[in-house]
Amino acid sequence: MIQKLEAAERAEALAKLEGWSSVEGRDAITKVFKFGDFQEAFAFMTRSALLAERMNHHPEWSNVYGTVTVTLATHVVDGVTAFDIRLAEGMNRFAG
Amino acid sequence: MIQKLEAAERAEALAKLEGWSSVEGRDAITKVFKFGDFQEAFAFMTRSALLAERMNHHPEWSNVYGTVTVTLATHVVDGVTAFDIRLAEGMNRFAG
Repeated sequence: MIQKLEAAERAEALAKLEGWSSVEGRDAITKVFKFGDFQEAFAFMTRSALLAERMNHHPEWSNVYGTVTVTLATHVVDGVTAFDIRLAEGMNRFAG
Repeated sequence: MIQKLEAAERAEALAKLEGWSSVEGRDAITKVFKFGDFQEAFAFMTRSALLAERMNHHPEWSNVYGTVTVTLATHVVDGVTAFDIRLAEGMNRFAG
């Protein structure tokens, strides 16, 4: 059974994840990705979607032209788990 | 130059667009699309993204698992134009 990260693990993982921060008032992490245009943004979303589907762990996200805002949390435990960290790492990699 | 739809045109177009409604406090239209899972939702988004790119007219949208919430407006005129209606029609078609 997947478990929420403990405070120290969560802080350590987040410190290594460039651009991600904690969501106010909710146990989740968030990042705003900026791209040059819609095509680049959607290419990033497509690659992220394939990873999410492979992991069976999906983002909450929105897109306006070149901007993609992502929030990650693990619904079954209502908090941040290793799955969120792994998906966030993948997204950072895809964003270059 | 693309122009905002006049009130009567806008109302007529919206009446034909199943599930779309006006956004409160903004000249834009919105619809929430519901799918069975993330894979179906993202397939819809991919097809919509290709149409958007072809039209060079892009949605504002968010996705959580099987739900896709779309807002359409034409930024250069800060309102609803024929482009929004065309993109909305395409999205309805893609959603089946």
